Amino acid sequence: MDFLSLDPLLRQALQEDLGRGDITTEAILQSNPHADGVRTAQVLARQRLILAGWPVFVQVFQLLGPVDGQIRYREGDWVEPGCMGTLEGSVSILLKAERVALNFLQRLCGIATRTRGCVDRVGSSRVRVLDTRKTTPLWRNLEKYAVRMGGGQNHRMGLDDGVLIKENHIAAAGSIVAAVRACRERCGHLQRIQVEVTNQDELAEALDAGADAVLLDNMPVEEVRRSVATCAGRCLVEVSGGITGQNLQAYAETGVDFISMGSLTHSVTSSDISLMLDRV
Amino acid sequence: MDFLSLDPLLRQALQEDLGRGDITTEAILQSNPHADGVRTAQVLARQRLILAGWPVFVQVFQLLGPVDGQIRYREGDWVEPGCMGTLEGSVSILLKAERVALNFLQRLCGIATRTRGCVDRVGSSRVRVLDTRKTTPLWRNLEKYAVRMGGGQNHRMGLDDGVLIKENHIAAAGSIVAAVRACRERCGHLQRIQVEVTNQDELAEALDAGADAVLLDNMPVEEVRRSVATCAGRCLVEVSGGITGQNLQAYAETGVDFISMGSLTHSVTSSDISLMLDRV
Amino acid sequence: MDFLSLDPLLRQALQEDLGRGDITTEAILQSNPHADGVRTAQVLARQRLILAGWPVFVQVFQLLGPVDGQIRYREGDWVEPGCMGTLEGSVSILLKAERVALNFLQRLCGIATRTRGCVDRVGSSRVRVLDTRKTTPLWRNLEKYAVRMGGGQNHRMGLDDGVLIKENHIAAAGSIVAAVRACRERCGHLQRIQVEVTNQDELAEALDAGADAVLLDNMPVEEVRRSVATCAGRCLVEVSGGITGQNLQAYAETGVDFISMGSLTHSVTSSDISLMLDRV
Amino acid sequence: MDFLSLDPLLRQALQEDLGRGDITTEAILQSNPHADGVRTAQVLARQRLILAGWPVFVQVFQLLGPVDGQIRYREGDWVEPGCMGTLEGSVSILLKAERVALNFLQRLCGIATRTRGCVDRVGSSRVRVLDTRKTTPLWRNLEKYAVRMGGGQNHRMGLDDGVLIKENHIAAAGSIVAAVRACRERCGHLQRIQVEVTNQDELAEALDAGADAVLLDNMPVEEVRRSVATCAGRCLVEVSGGITGQNLQAYAETGVDFISMGSLTHSVTSSDISLMLDRV
Amino acid sequence: MDFLSLDPLLRQALQEDLGRGDITTEAILQSNPHADGVRTAQVLARQRLILAGWPVFVQVFQLLGPVDGQIRYREGDWVEPGCMGTLEGSVSILLKAERVALNFLQRLCGIATRTRGCVDRVGSSRVRVLDTRKTTPLWRNLEKYAVRMGGGQNHRMGLDDGVLIKENHIAAAGSIVAAVRACRERCGHLQRIQVEVTNQDELAEALDAGADAVLLDNMPVEEVRRSVATCAGRCLVEVSGGITGQNLQAYAETGVDFISMGSLTHSVTSSDISLMLDRV
Amino acid sequence: MDFLSLDPLLRQALQEDLGRGDITTEAILQSNPHADGVRTAQVLARQRLILAGWPVFVQVFQLLGPVDGQIRYREGDWVEPGCMGTLEGSVSILLKAERVALNFLQRLCGIATRTRGCVDRVGSSRVRVLDTRKTTPLWRNLEKYAVRMGGGQNHRMGLDDGVLIKENHIAAAGSIVAAVRACRERCGHLQRIQVEVTNQDELAEALDAGADAVLLDNMPVEEVRRSVATCAGRCLVEVSGGITGQNLQAYAETGVDFISMGSLTHSVTSSDISLMLDRV
Repeated sequence: MDFLSLDPLLRQALQEDLGRGDITTEAILQSNPHADGVRTAQVLARQRLILAGWPVFVQVFQLLGPVDGQIRYREGDWVEPGCMGTLEGSVSILLKAERVALNFLQRLCGIATRTRGCVDRVGSSRVRVLDTRKTTPLWRNLEKYAVRMGGGQNHRMGLDDGVLIKENHIAAAGSIVAAVRACRERCGHLQRIQVEVTNQDELAEALDAGADAVLLDNMPVEEVRRSVATCAGRCLVEVSGGITGQNLQAYAETGVDFISMGSLTHSVTSSDISLMLDRV
Repeated sequence: MDFLSLDPLLRQALQEDLGRGDITTEAILQSNPHADGVRTAQVLARQRLILAGWPVFVQVFQLLGPVDGQIRYREGDWVEPGCMGTLEGSVSILLKAERVALNFLQRLCGIATRTRGCVDRVGSSRVRVLDTRKTTPLWRNLEKYAVRMGGGQNHRMGLDDGVLIKENHIAAAGSIVAAVRACRERCGHLQRIQVEVTNQDELAEALDAGADAVLLDNMPVEEVRRSVATCAGRCLVEVSGGITGQNLQAYAETGVDFISMGSLTHSVTSSDISLMLDRV
Repeated sequence: MDFLSLDPLLRQALQEDLGRGDITTEAILQSNPHADGVRTAQVLARQRLILAGWPVFVQVFQLLGPVDGQIRYREGDWVEPGCMGTLEGSVSILLKAERVALNFLQRLCGIATRTRGCVDRVGSSRVRVLDTRKTTPLWRNLEKYAVRMGGGQNHRMGLDDGVLIKENHIAAAGSIVAAVRACRERCGHLQRIQVEVTNQDELAEALDAGADAVLLDNMPVEEVRRSVATCAGRCLVEVSGGITGQNLQAYAETGVDFISMGSLTHSVTSSDISLMLDRV
Repeated sequence: MDFLSLDPLLRQALQEDLGRGDITTEAILQSNPHADGVRTAQVLARQRLILAGWPVFVQVFQLLGPVDGQIRYREGDWVEPGCMGTLEGSVSILLKAERVALNFLQRLCGIATRTRGCVDRVGSSRVRVLDTRKTTPLWRNLEKYAVRMGGGQNHRMGLDDGVLIKENHIAAAGSIVAAVRACRERCGHLQRIQVEVTNQDELAEALDAGADAVLLDNMPVEEVRRSVATCAGRCLVEVSGGITGQNLQAYAETGVDFISMGSLTHSVTSSDISLMLDRV
Repeated sequence: MDFLSLDPLLRQALQEDLGRGDITTEAILQSNPHADGVRTAQVLARQRLILAGWPVFVQVFQLLGPVDGQIRYREGDWVEPGCMGTLEGSVSILLKAERVALNFLQRLCGIATRTRGCVDRVGSSRVRVLDTRKTTPLWRNLEKYAVRMGGGQNHRMGLDDGVLIKENHIAAAGSIVAAVRACRERCGHLQRIQVEVTNQDELAEALDAGADAVLLDNMPVEEVRRSVATCAGRCLVEVSGGITGQNLQAYAETGVDFISMGSLTHSVTSSDISLMLDRV
Repeated sequence: MDFLSLDPLLRQALQEDLGRGDITTEAILQSNPHADGVRTAQVLARQRLILAGWPVFVQVFQLLGPVDGQIRYREGDWVEPGCMGTLEGSVSILLKAERVALNFLQRLCGIATRTRGCVDRVGSSRVRVLDTRKTTPLWRNLEKYAVRMGGGQNHRMGLDDGVLIKENHIAAAGSIVAAVRACRERCGHLQRIQVEVTNQDELAEALDAGADAVLLDNMPVEEVRRSVATCAGRCLVEVSGGITGQNLQAYAETGVDFISMGSLTHSVTSSDISLMLDRV
C-alpha cells in the first residue's frame, strides 16, 4: 500500500480533532517550556491482535513533526498483550496526535484481527475470504489493506474496476442476458463479468449468458453446494450473505472459490491499544 | 446539525466508490436508454433501530442529481422493521449512490441505536451519557450527531473547544496543580477546566487546584461513589473506562453527573438496512 | 460520460486563461453598460468534422453564468461546414469564455474526427479500434470520450482498472510466467490478464502462462497473422505499434480482435471552429 | 520557468493515471520483493528533436520518490536520435510514472521542435514568432515554455496581462475608437493597447484611435506589406491567421514585427521518445 | 468586479469564524424552533461613509442560505448616518454570518471613504490617485475594488501584469539601462516599462534607457516639479512615498500624472456599521 | 502558535501577488544569470515597534526556497529603529516575496504595538485587555497571535469555542433566562456562559439566570463601577464598546476583569518596515 498518498486524509483527520489547536497541551507547555522535550512513549496492546496500520499510526504523528517509531512485529503478525512498540518525539506532538493515531490503529487492527479469525476458520480449504464495498466511507483503501493483513483478499476496490451485475441492475436491464451482453459490449476487454444470483433459475441464466463469475446471494449451504455442482468449473463461484462465524466452515466446504463478508469492515470492534508517556 | 456543510465529505465518499465511474451501471443504461427513467426504491429496515442520518442518506444521492426522499419517522425515533421510507429518482443515480449512502445510514443508525440502549439503561437518573473523542477519523461530526439522536450528549468536539487535563498532561506539567494553573492563565475565560484522576489522592489534588470538573478514570463502582461524596457538589463529576451494558446502571446510581463511553463510536454494529428498486 | 463532474477541471481551465480577469472585455463593457446585453453567437465549423464535446463547450460558458446552447447535431455525428449551433448569453460571458471553450471543442472534435477515419478504414471487419494511455495529461477522460464518439473503444482508463504486463514488467518479474502468476494471485478475481509480446517465443510463453489476452507489439502484418493462428482463439489478440492510416486495413484483416493507436490522442490536429457574435 | 509550482498539476496527472494504484506493477513487485531495487533506465529519442521539459519529466518521477535524472543536452538544444539521458530510481517508481512523464515530455518536445522549424524559416529577419492563447487547456504555462525553448516568444499569458481588442470587442463597443478609449481609461497605465484589424479601413481607424499595436488578421501577404507601410513605425505590427510553413517566410519579409501561430500549440505531433529499463 | 468568484474566499472567512458551528445560536434556536423564522434586520451606518462592498456583505449571508438584501445607495455613493439598508432571512443565518459580513463591509467602506478623501483633495487637477501592492494579504482584489469605489485608480494587480523596475532590481541588474533592456527583450510586447528613481541622475538614466513611465520615490515637492519638467511629456510620471493628507494637494499641483499611496490599504480605519435584528 | 499550519494561507498570499510570475525580476535575472546569487538583505525598522510575526515573515520567503533569517529580538520585544534583522537567500526569492512578507510583518507589528500601548495604559491593575471577533477575515489566528505578543489576551477564537449571548440572541430566545437555560442544556459541560447586558435590569436578569460571566456593553464608567458592585464576584465581568486610549485607564479602575477592544484588530496602522538588499 502506498502510505504516502494517505497524507491528505491523515491531515484531514488531525485537523478534525485539533481544530484551532490543542488548548490544554499548549497552555501547559507554554507555561513550562522545559516540559516540551523529546520523550519516549510506549504503545501498549491490551489484548491479542493482528497488527495492521503501524505505518499509518506513525505517519499521523510525523505530520506534526519528527517522530521515530519502533515496532516489534511485522504487519500481519499476531501481537501479544504488552508493549508492542515505542514512539520517540517531542511531548507536544505525542500529546496532540495520540488520539487520532490510536483511532486509526485500533480500528485497523480490529479489522485485521477479525479477518484472521475468519480465515483461520476456513482452514486448509482453498477458499479465499473476501471483503465487500460495505466499508466505512473515506476508509476504503485503509480497511481493504487491513483485510489483506488479516489474510483476506480484496473484492472490487470500487464501482470502476470490476463488473458485478446485481439484482437492481438486472431489474434495470430487463434480464440477466441483456445485462451481461451490455457489459460485454461496452466494458473494457480486460474486465470479467460477475452476476449475482439468488436461485437456480438465475444461476442457469447467468451461465447461459456467459458470466465469468457468479455471486450466490443469501443461499443456504445446501443450495450453494448444488450451485457449485451446476457451475462445474465453468465460472468462478462466490457466496455472500448470512455468513457468520458459526456457518463459515460449512460454506467453505461447499467448494465455492470465494466467501465475501460485509461485517469484516462494517461491524468492527476496535482493538484495545493505548499510549503511555514515559515519566522522566 | 448543518448537513449542507457535509457536501465535500459526502462527495469525497462518493468519489472513493465511483472512481472513474460505475462501469456496470453505465454499460447497462447506455445499452438501453429507456431503462434510465425515474423510479421509486424502498428503504427497508431489516431490524428495529433508532433513525439517525436520513438527511445524509438522501444528500448522498442528491449530489448526483435530483432525488426525492420520503421518510416515515423523525430522526431519533424507533424504526420498526419494514419499509421505513422511499426514494424517487433516476435509476442511474439510485444504483450509483446506493452503497455509499447505505454505508453512511447503517453506521449512524447503529450508533444511535446502541446509544439509546445505554441511555435507557441509565433510566430515570439524571445522569447524562456522553461520547468521547474515540470516533472514527473523518466522522467526528456525524458520529456525535448520531449519539445525540440516540439521546446521548456530546463531550468535547475536539482538542480546541474544551480543557481536559489527562494523565500524560499531568506528567508533562509536573503536577495537577501546575497543569490547572497553566490552563487557567492561558486558556480563554469562557473555558471550564476538567482533570482526569485515577485515585483519591489525585482527586483531592484536583479539587484543591480548583478544577471545575473531574473525570474519574477506570474506577470501580464503590470508589466512584466515594469520589462523588468527596466532591460534594464542588465540581462536575464524570466517570469513564470499563463501563459496559452490565455495569452501566450501577455506575449511574453512584451520583455522577456524566458517564462517557468510547464504545458508542469505536465499536459499532451497523444497522441492517437495504434498498430495493421497484419493478416496473 | 458524467459531464457534471468535469466542473472543477473546466473551472481550472477558465481560471488559467482569465487569471485576475479579462481586462479588455471589462474595460469595454464598463464604459458602456448597455453593451452587456444578451446576444446570440454562431458556432461555425470551418471544415467537415465529427462532433465531440458540445456539452463541454457549453458547460465552460455556463460556469460564468446562464448561457443557452443549441446544436444541430448529436455527439458522434458528422458536422458539415457552416453554422453548427448557437449560443445565447450575455456578451461578457460569451467574450470571456470563448477561447477556452473553443480550445476544448476543437481538440475533442479533432480526436473524434481522426478516430472515425481509422474506424472507417477498418471497415466491415469485426476489429475494434482502441486508444491507449498516451493521452494528454489531465485530459484522459475527455480524450477517451472523444475516441468513443469517433467510434473507437477504450483500452484501460488507467493503471488501476486492468492488468497489462509489459516488457519492463517482465524484466522486473524475471519471466512472463512469473509475472502472470503474480498478477493472478494478487489482482482481483474480476481482472483479466494481458501480456505484451514482441515475438513468437514470448507469445508461446504467454499462452502457456494462461494469459487472457496478448498485445502484439510492433509486429509486421505477416507475423501478426501468424500469431493470430497460434492463439487459435485461446485468448484475445490486440496489435499495437507502427499502425498508420496506410497499413491499418492490412492489420485489420489479420484476424486480430483489437488495434490500438497512440496517435489518436497524442498527435491531434484541432478541428477548425470559431465563434461569431451576432451584430445588433 | 518555476517548475516547482507545477507540483500540483503533475500530481493531478499522476493521479489521473494511477487512480487507486498500478495493480500490475504492485502485484509483480509484491510477489518478488527483490525485484524492486534501484535500476537505471535509458531515455531514448527515436527522432531528432528540440529538448523541452526534461525537468518536468524528472519531476513527475520524483513526486513518487527519489529518482535521479541525467540529461546530455540543455533545454532548447537539438537532440540526436539515441540515448538522450538516464534515470536512476526504484523499479516501482520508474514503472508507475513512465507513461505520464513521457506524455509530458513528448508533447513539449513536439511543440519546441515545431516552433524551432518556424523560427528557422523566418531566418535572419528581425521578426519574432509568437504563440497564441490557442493552447491546450491546463497546459498554458507548459506549452508557452516549450515555445520559448523552440526560440519563439510568448504573446499574452492570459486575458489579464494584456489588452487585445478583437472583432467581437469592437462589435460590443460600437467602434474601434470607443473600444480603445475605454481601455485607455480603465486599464492600468502600464498596459499597451493592441487592436485586431482585418482591412485598411480598420487599420486607419486603429491608428487614429492611438493603438500601440495592431494585429493584422488573415491578410494576404501583399496587404500585410501595405499595412506595414501605412503604420510607418507608429505602432507595433503583428500578423496572424493562415500562416503555414509554406508562406511563413513571405510573411516574415513584409516587415511586420511579429507573426503569431495557433498551430504551434493546438496541433502538435508528439516527439517519439521511450524509456527502457536496463536489464540486471 | 466578479463577485461570484469570491465565493471560496468568503466561505473560508465564514469557516474561520464558525469552526464547528455557532454553539450559542444553535443552542438557542434548537430550544425554541419557532424562534428561527424569517426576520428583517437593519444595517446601520453610524458615520458618514462611502459605500463599498455591499454585494460582498450580502453574499456572505447567502452562502449560508437564502437572504435578501436591499440597499438605498449605489456602490461609490456617500452614505449618510442611519439605516443604509436591510436584510431579510432566517434568524439563524443572520446571527451566524453577521460578524464576518460586517468585518468585510466595514473595512471596504473604510478604504473607499479614505480614498475619496484623497481624491477630493486632489480636486480638479487631472492627477489620478493610485493604490499600491501594500494591500492586506488575501484581500488584494477586494481592497483594489474599494479604492476604485472611492474614486481611485489601480496600479498593478500583482507582479505579473506590469513591469516596475525598483531599486533592488536595479541593484540586481547592475544599472537602469541593463534592467530596462532586459525587460524590453523578455517581457511581452504589450507591457510598458516603468522605472523607480530617487534623484535626477537616475531620472536622466531612466529617460535615456527609454522608460515608458517613471516612479519618483520619496521626493520633496520641489524636486518632483523639477522632474516633471525634465520628463517633458516623454513618459508618464508617478510620485509615491511620504504623501499625506497635508501635502497631497501640493504634490498634485506639480504636474505629475499619478500619485500612489500605500496607506489607502495598509492603514485603514474601519467604518462604523452595525446590524440590528427587528424585534417581532 | 503553530506557524507550520500557516503554509497554505501564506502560499495563497504569495500566489495572490505573484500570479503567473514576477515578470520584472524574471526578465532581469534571466538576462544576467550571474545576478541571481545568494545575498543578504537588511530588515529595517523605521519606527519603534513591538515585534510580532517574524517567523511568518521568514516563512513567506522560505515557501519559495531556502532563505535564512536572523533577528535581533524576540517576539513581543520592543524593537528600536534601525536594522532589526537580516535575510540571506537568492536574489530572486528576496525580490519576489519581499512585498507579501512585509505586508504580513507590518500589519502584525502594528497590532502588537497598539495592543502594548493599551496594556501599558491599564498599568498595574489586574485587568486583562482582550481582543474581539472584529478581526480581518482570514487573519483571525494571526491577528490574535499579534494581540498576545502585545500583551493582550484572546477572547473567543470563533463561534464554536465559547458561549456569548448577545442582544440579538436574547431577542431570538425571548429572554435572557430562556437563552441561558438553552445554552446550559445543550452546550458542552465544559463551556461557561457569558451574557451581554446594556443596563442594570439586564444585568440583574443575567445574574439570576446564573450567567458565569457578563459583558457590559457601551456603559459609561460610572455605570460599569455600579455593575461591578452588583456582580460582587458572582461572575466574571467584561466591558466593551466606546473604549479609547483616553478612557481606558478609567475603565480599568472600575474593578472589571476584562476590557475588550475591537479597534486592536479592525483599525490598525501598519508599522513602518522595509527591506534593503545589500549591494555587492
